[in-house]
Amino acid sequence: MSQADFGRLELELAEVEMPGLISCRTEFGPSQPFKGARITGSLHMTIQTAVLIETLTALGAEVRWCSCNIFSTQDHAAAAIARDSAAVFAWKGETLQEYWWCTERALDWGPGIVLTIIRDGLKGDPKKYHKMKERLVGVSEETTTGVKRLYQMQANGTLLFPAINVNDSVTKSKFDNLYGCRHSLPDGLMRATDVMIAGKVAVICGYGDVGKGCAAAMKQAGARVIVTEIDPICALQALMEGLQVLTLEDVVSEADIFCTTTGNKDIIMVDHMRKMKNNAIVCNIGHFDNEIDMHGLETFPGVKRITIKPQTDRWVFPDTKSGVIVLAEGRLMNLGCATGHPSFVMSCSFTNQVIAQLELWNERSSGKYEKKVYVLPKHLDEKVAALHLGKLGAKLTKLTKDQSDYISIPVEGPYKPAHYRY
Amino acid sequence: MSQADFGRLELELAEVEMPGLISCRTEFGPSQPFKGARITGSLHMTIQTAVLIETLTALGAEVRWCSCNIFSTQDHAAAAIARDSAAVFAWKGETLQEYWWCTERALDWGPGIVLTIIRDGLKGDPKKYHKMKERLVGVSEETTTGVKRLYQMQANGTLLFPAINVNDSVTKSKFDNLYGCRHSLPDGLMRATDVMIAGKVAVICGYGDVGKGCAAAMKQAGARVIVTEIDPICALQALMEGLQVLTLEDVVSEADIFCTTTGNKDIIMVDHMRKMKNNAIVCNIGHFDNEIDMHGLETFPGVKRITIKPQTDRWVFPDTKSGVIVLAEGRLMNLGCATGHPSFVMSCSFTNQVIAQLELWNERSSGKYEKKVYVLPKHLDEKVAALHLGKLGAKLTKLTKDQSDYISIPVEGPYKPAHYRY
Amino acid sequence: MSQADFGRLELELAEVEMPGLISCRTEFGPSQPFKGARITGSLHMTIQTAVLIETLTALGAEVRWCSCNIFSTQDHAAAAIARDSAAVFAWKGETLQEYWWCTERALDWGPGIVLTIIRDGLKGDPKKYHKMKERLVGVSEETTTGVKRLYQMQANGTLLFPAINVNDSVTKSKFDNLYGCRHSLPDGLMRATDVMIAGKVAVICGYGDVGKGCAAAMKQAGARVIVTEIDPICALQALMEGLQVLTLEDVVSEADIFCTTTGNKDIIMVDHMRKMKNNAIVCNIGHFDNEIDMHGLETFPGVKRITIKPQTDRWVFPDTKSGVIVLAEGRLMNLGCATGHPSFVMSCSFTNQVIAQLELWNERSSGKYEKKVYVLPKHLDEKVAALHLGKLGAKLTKLTKDQSDYISIPVEGPYKPAHYRY
Amino acid sequence: MSQADFGRLELELAEVEMPGLISCRTEFGPSQPFKGARITGSLHMTIQTAVLIETLTALGAEVRWCSCNIFSTQDHAAAAIARDSAAVFAWKGETLQEYWWCTERALDWGPGIVLTIIRDGLKGDPKKYHKMKERLVGVSEETTTGVKRLYQMQANGTLLFPAINVNDSVTKSKFDNLYGCRHSLPDGLMRATDVMIAGKVAVICGYGDVGKGCAAAMKQAGARVIVTEIDPICALQALMEGLQVLTLEDVVSEADIFCTTTGNKDIIMVDHMRKMKNNAIVCNIGHFDNEIDMHGLETFPGVKRITIKPQTDRWVFPDTKSGVIVLAEGRLMNLGCATGHPSFVMSCSFTNQVIAQLELWNERSSGKYEKKVYVLPKHLDEKVAALHLGKLGAKLTKLTKDQSDYISIPVEGPYKPAHYRY
Repeated sequence: MSQADFGRLELELAEVEMPGLISCRTEFGPSQPFKGARITGSLHMTIQTAVLIETLTALGAEVRWCSCNIFSTQDHAAAAIARDSAAVFAWKGETLQEYWWCTERALDWGPGIVLTIIRDGLKGDPKKYHKMKERLVGVSEETTTGVKRLYQMQANGTLLFPAINVNDSVTKSKFDNLYGCRHSLPDGLMRATDVMIAGKVAVICGYGDVGKGCAAAMKQAGARVIVTEIDPICALQALMEGLQVLTLEDVVSEADIFCTTTGNKDIIMVDHMRKMKNNAIVCNIGHFDNEIDMHGLETFPGVKRITIKPQTDRWVFPDTKSGVIVLAEGRLMNLGCATGHPSFVMSCSFTNQVIAQLELWNERSSGKYEKKVYVLPKHLDEKVAALHLGKLGAKLTKLTKDQSDYISIPVEGPYKPAHYRY
Repeated sequence: MSQADFGRLELELAEVEMPGLISCRTEFGPSQPFKGARITGSLHMTIQTAVLIETLTALGAEVRWCSCNIFSTQDHAAAAIARDSAAVFAWKGETLQEYWWCTERALDWGPGIVLTIIRDGLKGDPKKYHKMKERLVGVSEETTTGVKRLYQMQANGTLLFPAINVNDSVTKSKFDNLYGCRHSLPDGLMRATDVMIAGKVAVICGYGDVGKGCAAAMKQAGARVIVTEIDPICALQALMEGLQVLTLEDVVSEADIFCTTTGNKDIIMVDHMRKMKNNAIVCNIGHFDNEIDMHGLETFPGVKRITIKPQTDRWVFPDTKSGVIVLAEGRLMNLGCATGHPSFVMSCSFTNQVIAQLELWNERSSGKYEKKVYVLPKHLDEKVAALHLGKLGAKLTKLTKDQSDYISIPVEGPYKPAHYRY
Repeated sequence: MSQADFGRLELELAEVEMPGLISCRTEFGPSQPFKGARITGSLHMTIQTAVLIETLTALGAEVRWCSCNIFSTQDHAAAAIARDSAAVFAWKGETLQEYWWCTERALDWGPGIVLTIIRDGLKGDPKKYHKMKERLVGVSEETTTGVKRLYQMQANGTLLFPAINVNDSVTKSKFDNLYGCRHSLPDGLMRATDVMIAGKVAVICGYGDVGKGCAAAMKQAGARVIVTEIDPICALQALMEGLQVLTLEDVVSEADIFCTTTGNKDIIMVDHMRKMKNNAIVCNIGHFDNEIDMHGLETFPGVKRITIKPQTDRWVFPDTKSGVIVLAEGRLMNLGCATGHPSFVMSCSFTNQVIAQLELWNERSSGKYEKKVYVLPKHLDEKVAALHLGKLGAKLTKLTKDQSDYISIPVEGPYKPAHYRY
Repeated sequence: MSQADFGRLELELAEVEMPGLISCRTEFGPSQPFKGARITGSLHMTIQTAVLIETLTALGAEVRWCSCNIFSTQDHAAAAIARDSAAVFAWKGETLQEYWWCTERALDWGPGIVLTIIRDGLKGDPKKYHKMKERLVGVSEETTTGVKRLYQMQANGTLLFPAINVNDSVTKSKFDNLYGCRHSLPDGLMRATDVMIAGKVAVICGYGDVGKGCAAAMKQAGARVIVTEIDPICALQALMEGLQVLTLEDVVSEADIFCTTTGNKDIIMVDHMRKMKNNAIVCNIGHFDNEIDMHGLETFPGVKRITIKPQTDRWVFPDTKSGVIVLAEGRLMNLGCATGHPSFVMSCSFTNQVIAQLELWNERSSGKYEKKVYVLPKHLDEKVAALHLGKLGAKLTKLTKDQSDYISIPVEGPYKPAHYRY
């Protein structure tokens, strides 16, 4: 708790960078729309999340929180929230056992009606959810992987409550995933290794939104970027940006930095790592630590792990005496080695969360939402964006009535069809 | 016809840059799937279109062609096609009367079954279409504006035939619109004005796919770019790329280059032009010439038009003696002042066209396609991309069975859900 | 002469883009400092050069002009000048014999005192210069190659007159060479071939100022750029920008575009060209046509030349039936295939020329300049830059007296030591 | 000393990134050329400096070291060196009194011959230098500011020993200053504030090598960049890169990030800071803390300092309750808030230092170096670059004899004239 004051100072800085959340407080705070709502969150317990939590409480909610990653908690953020605003069960460097204990605690409301904000799917004892299902108004989920599971549950009939897919709000996936990673990949690399990026060869595995952000960051910093892809469309996009598209096998021995962004498993295997240059950097910003074959590395006969500093390990192979530097033990390196995405972009994501939770709560008795997965309507997506323009000094053009008629788009939006790709 | 030899030489160069179309010839040519099909095209009669036409004829079709724009025909391309492959009714600098005559002729097959490739909606006498509807198997359309009309026709029940929306293939809208314009905006500016772009202030009206390409091109060439937008999401994207977002009124008197990309009308009015710096450049790469208030300019009392060279006019206002340079009379400047989009990116668009036409033709009796608007299935979109990778030296990674199971995506694709935004 | 009106219109456009030259007219015109001076110029006879010529005549000079390149004359520029302002001996597509005749005529003043503006060294009959030397006040020279020769002449005692090296003004070499080529390489490529640059592999031979501009242009347009270099410092600069540095042999068979910028000979040989991909583009923006082995190509047994259009030839090798596309017959492709550098950057170079000529003329009797090569003093270099800021809307900060004392730099400049590299 | 092991691990990582220094050990180590030399260094005591120190000792020198900045010492680097290799007098967060004590100790060799590596000029008691002058073989200096003083001392006859200006080696000023800052400015900003750079307005005061690196970094990260400059040439360069050039007064109230790079004083005054947006970030990467008016800020009546964390302070003005965030107390933010420049680029700078010291030592009795300031000859500058190419996978092209003759440049270099600007 000694870090609560430091956390509060950083929270105050972050608030200035999170205009969407602060606007929610201004717009909705007076009417206390979450009065009576109990919200459990399972999401990296960072400074930005703290501003989200205090936005929810400012709107009347009661909140309990745990992290969705054993390394991602910022202890000063957790301390400030625990002291001032909500129940927090999270600290940096939890064991897996502690992690599950935290999750249980965060869900343990006793009787009462709850909403849930989640990241990366529903973890823990499924039976628990069954027991809770009567009282569970709905969940909002913001990751690609988590959303995918929700759709699978919907498809096979196991979804027990309404869910809002926040990930596929444009103001989430095309901002947080893309611009967030463009910021936080170099941040994590520099904090963990101090390595000069210019002049290096960087391999980005995957060229989805996260991969696009990572590749852009490396290119801009002066690296030569090579992309690996399974999807020919994304591959062609990479080529149009001047990036080379090859397989990992083609380049494994000549690159300096490897970063996985695929959301799949078994991307960089121990046999790849053995062929890499000495001190090649291997990291993951995609999702689970199984994008990198950590198990294969840890169990490789005779391998030696030298911890340079927390989250930065050099693994030396016995035969070659050559080593690779693995960040954050193969987990999300931007959260493990740096502080995750910056406040401004998280404000976009989290404003979507607040709006999704408000929608679920307000409509809890109306029957509007069935046990299905929904996305937010486009006008709310556009509203999230609009709330972030003023901070950056932007001014929008307004359609005239005549123009609006000409293109059959309302003056106040929404401005694009549902399938528009941005 | 004297230009037919020159056209043929350029056609041969273009073929090397259009691997998608050439692959269609290789894959489908032997089975002559278009045998019996009569295809009318209404689309800029350029070198790239000529390769499309000869791909259709190589697959067995009979083809008649007109242009969809009075300035966009490349006469040497038309000459080569007319001499060697198909009936062409198009030349550069048609009058509007001539334009309609050409369109009529291209549709005039006598009795017989037809397909139609169109751009920018169905023009000409609607009664004609009614008369043709029995024989019209379907249309494929590749522009944002044209597609919009098809959906409107579908909505109000006036769509008389099946239609495939090629514009919303990812390999069209995210390539042709974006990378095509990134190439052709500076090309048109340089050919028309020889102006140095570096150091200038460029205003891009609209930040959709076309606007994104234009803004990227101007930024890369060393201009300072200001974007105008009505859509807060697109505006926020512009800001994330370091571009300023303001209204036209804010910047009209300080910018050097103005380019409209909106697909709407009345974007740059004569009153804007009067406030611009001397020799400010005004052009349109969005759609119709009504994005720029050409009528207001032409009828402004005392205005003087000085034609520097074809498609490059300086308009001088009587009071200030200050002038603006308007390109291509307000029509698409990349086609009027340069040669449109380059072959490689048009190969993506046109391979979609060939595939769409094949689909309509093959299923003409199966009832698969009703009188609705369809998009191509994602696996065909991915196929189009795949056909263009080899030319650029790319190598794709293949999913293992294990990875495929883990993320529930088939090894051979499609790799993304329908709503994925790329 | 029928093109004189067109030339005059383009001249008027160019004047708006050449604030340095127009400022010279305003500042010096009234006092007619060149009264009595006869100036011969040997320099590409373009629109921009026309503005230079008319600036010299506006200051009182009598001028005769020839081009320094058989392809670079813009006939409409020559026509306008010939009709209105000065004697011009140049047209596009001179034979070498005609070229020398033009040069002779431009130097033929009869008796009288002359100044000379040159490019690429002193050509023609050296005896002529000996005969002229009494009357020759001095020369100013603006190319890297030409300047090199002047220094060699100085070193071996054969320099017969004072010379000012304009090339090494910062406002020339770091602007014209760098930003000029960044503009004109893609311009030339697009006009000559319409090829899509994005996705291609471009090899830039040499990474001096010209090479830096070319590499930047290709990278920005979405190409993957590979640099060849002999100088390890320039090579390291390329690496820091994310470019790959290899030898031509390493990449000759995988690249799409090859551009020489070295100022040396024998860079791309016919044996290289034979190994290139079909329709690889080969061009030179460095200097003489011997950067590319045109002789080897032309005399290769069985090679076939197919002229697509003027300055764009496809050369097909007999054994492979594979061809390369050579631009501008190996001469400067930006002048042969496009219109050279844009007005704004040429205004920087040419303002240096005017200032150099004024200096030589004003000091013709003072003995200030001996038979040596000089560079312009830094305060004049800074003045040239200052004259170009207003057009781009820039505002300079002024040193306070206190700051000036602190860093021992005069408030009014010069602001940098002589060896500063910018 | 508890951090010595950690320091050693980071030293080992850095060695892999510093090929120039390691090559010096390989090439010169066996002959022990520094045998008998005593070298005092006054330079940021970082990991990279530690590799320099151990290179000097590997060549036979005895070394004593202090830092040239009270905040820049990395304690684990100092600990490793102190334990293993040399006498170190430096720690992070020295008082000014402690700083001078350290400097004294580092110079205190008792009798014996010394060399000195310095940064930022000769500090401390000038009388001390007078006493040392007999024994001082020479100094090498690597900063713009320090070099400037040496030239002033040379000019007014107070330079007491030979000096080598390492700053003006191309491989120093065009790499360390430019690419080093391009890396370390965002690094420092992110570690200190976690602020999202994309979408922000960044003002870079000064557009020399440091300013160019900073502006490039901010632009690449998605900020809109405005430059302030006194020098019209540098201003014009900024414009050519698409940056706006204005005065600080024009933009002080609309920007988000301010960074000084001028090497001058009084750039951002307290009156500027009062007009800034709330939480605007103010930092210095140029030189002394007097680029920012820290004194004015600290003594502003009623101002309140809130330390967020070490080196990150929020200063709140009493009237507006608005605050600015000042990094590193106005001192070099990349060293105060991050870890300075990365190893690879420091390897270039420090290899110049080793070569300079070797030269001074080897020629200490030959009379080659008088009491003047020298720069390293170009072939050594090129050698430094060459030593760094292999690590990045580059291959150089070799001149043929014929080409060498043609351009009168030796096959083995140097490749450029002395005045070449790169």
